[in-house]
Amino acid sequence: MQVFLKSSHRSLLATPLLGFRSIPRAAFTSSAFLKWDGGVSMVQGASRGIGLQFVKQLLEKTDRGHVIATCRNPNGATGLLDLKNKFAERLEILHLDVTVESTIEASATSVREKYGSLNLLINASGILSIPNVLQPETTLNKVEKSSLMLAYEINAVGPILVIKHMWPLLKVGGGTGTERDVAVVANLSARVGSIGDNRLGGWHSYRSSKTALNQLTKTVSVEFARRKDPVICILLHPGTVDTDLSRPFQRNVPDGKLFTKEFSVQKLLGIINKAKSHDNGKFFAWDGQEIPW
Amino acid sequence: MQVFLKSSHRSLLATPLLGFRSIPRAAFTSSAFLKWDGGVSMVQGASRGIGLQFVKQLLEKTDRGHVIATCRNPNGATGLLDLKNKFAERLEILHLDVTVESTIEASATSVREKYGSLNLLINASGILSIPNVLQPETTLNKVEKSSLMLAYEINAVGPILVIKHMWPLLKVGGGTGTERDVAVVANLSARVGSIGDNRLGGWHSYRSSKTALNQLTKTVSVEFARRKDPVICILLHPGTVDTDLSRPFQRNVPDGKLFTKEFSVQKLLGIINKAKSHDNGKFFAWDGQEIPW
Ligand SMILES: NC(=O)c1ccc[n+]([C@@H]2O[C@H](COP(=O)([O-])OP(=O)(O)OC[C@H]3O[C@@H](n4cnc5c(N)ncnc54)[C@H](OP(=O)(O)O)[C@@H]3O)[C@@H](O)[C@H]2O)c1
Ligand SMILES: NC(=O)c1ccc[n+]([C@@H]2O[C@H](COP(=O)([O-])OP(=O)(O)OC[C@H]3O[C@@H](n4cnc5c(N)ncnc54)[C@H](OP(=O)(O)O)[C@@H]3O)[C@@H](O)[C@H]2O)c1
Repeated sequence: MQVFLKSSHRSLLATPLLGFRSIPRAAFTSSAFLKWDGGVSMVQGASRGIGLQFVKQLLEKTDRGHVIATCRNPNGATGLLDLKNKFAERLEILHLDVTVESTIEASATSVREKYGSLNLLINASGILSIPNVLQPETTLNKVEKSSLMLAYEINAVGPILVIKHMWPLLKVGGGTGTERDVAVVANLSARVGSIGDNRLGGWHSYRSSKTALNQLTKTVSVEFARRKDPVICILLHPGTVDTDLSRPFQRNVPDGKLFTKEFSVQKLLGIINKAKSHDNGKFFAWDGQEIPW
Repeated sequence: MQVFLKSSHRSLLATPLLGFRSIPRAAFTSSAFLKWDGGVSMVQGASRGIGLQFVKQLLEKTDRGHVIATCRNPNGATGLLDLKNKFAERLEILHLDVTVESTIEASATSVREKYGSLNLLINASGILSIPNVLQPETTLNKVEKSSLMLAYEINAVGPILVIKHMWPLLKVGGGTGTERDVAVVANLSARVGSIGDNRLGGWHSYRSSKTALNQLTKTVSVEFARRKDPVICILLHPGTVDTDLSRPFQRNVPDGKLFTKEFSVQKLLGIINKAKSHDNGKFFAWDGQEIPW
């Protein structure tokens, strides 16, 4: 499928193309037209858990498409390094820590120079607890400023800064090379971030950081729509998934409600792949149901 | 009206009462029973704007009740100092900066020693713009980490830390001395903090900080209810009110939609004075309508 970019996108492409030292084999360029068959996807927060599983399925479920996996410590990301051995040029591993904006900018530069566009950005990074640093609060008495600020920095501010820097690439990419009409930004939120659904209380830092992420994502989605960008932004709740993040809290999960990473990510990719313009700004659970704010 | 405190409250009262050097005239003590006729109210963020107006109306609309007004710079708070001249012992001015937790703790100690209880806490502090520091964002391109973090620290974290430290005093106070059954915490939020109502985008820092405040307030309200504390927590949108905060943005306000502080605070006090247990955790506009999350 040959895809032609709208003229408004050409000028944006011109500079990065000049920057190529060698044009990678998946890039079919016909004068100013560029296409990455299967699209270019970035998974941010890809060292472990749900993020790593996204990278895996994006590579394994089809033999098309390029994946950029970002993480804080590429040399120690053994799951990603294993995939790199198997998928070679289809996978790129970049260093990105959402708390250090220069690493976000450097990743954007790197993607621009190598691919010139993005069709999917999944923000999977997130924290709930860190031993001796952040404990999910069981009562107001345990709420600490440092915990609130840290959760906000990583869970809310981080993903928004990543979108800010990847936005130009997403606009160039749109749905080109994929089965979608639009580029998708998918932010991993959590049902506990819902205010309307908050019946248990507790977890002040995590909850409010995800609620703020929801508002920031909605705010960004409004601008994407107003500018008629070929980009949408959605929020995803993966269910309770068996990862390092949920491990300390799995005792209370009812039978059958603790999902494998494989199951959850398969469901979430289903939502992402079918996403349309009218999904912009929405908050979906793994089963496609919308979650109230 | 003589009010008897439940026995569970007595032990909490014992210590602060011993700390009194002179018992202020409004304190009618009969052995372990304490009552502040008209109640004890704290307005946090009271130097100007809506907070100052709350202090004014709490003092002027009735000749009962004590008011503690907190601000960052008591010596420069001319509006409060004028009121102090007029209302003398009914008004106490304390130093409190929500970004410095020790000033919150010191205020709590001071209130505990002098009054031993609180019946109303209004968190009125808040920032939208600060010249050369924080500008409400018109586009994602202008979103800066420092702005997001600062708005969050002052607008979301601040009020929650104040509630944390005043909670024991609010539990002692409940509705005692007032016409209510419960003590009330009223956090000044804003309609733009609603995710469901976000149709314009922009103002990322302010919006998401108020959304986080909404979630934190809801979370706290769930705990108050679970513990059967005689305390509720509500969120208030004052309308667009003619204060320093709204001044740079008043050009776009339709005729008749820019409220005076007097009008807005009169409406909000109406909501507060009538608040009941079932209002706990709700988000009200100035006209009493609930705002979606
Ligand atoms: N698991 C669940 O039940 C569940 C439920 C609801 C929502 N979620 C959300 O789903 C997302 C993925 O969670 P998970 O279960 O996969 O968690 P996880 O296994 O703990 O993985 C968290 C990921 O975030 C990364 N990360 C942490 N801080 C970072 C930073 N400053 N910069 C960049 N990356 C950072 C971690 O990288 P390092 O390896 O470098 O630490 C790791 O890759 C999170 O946003 C989480 O809130 C999960
Ligand atoms: N005005 C509106 O149209 C409107 C609309 C919706 C919501 N609100 C909300 O209503 C509340 C009151 O707003 P306003 O219009 O009265 O604003 P304002 O006139 O600008 O007053 C803001 C108040 O917050 C205080 N404050 C700022 N930073 C503080 C800190 N770190 N610690 C303690 N106090 C601090 C200020 O004290 P200093 O004098 O020391 O700076 C001042 O007393 C805010 O929460 C605002 O978001 C207002």
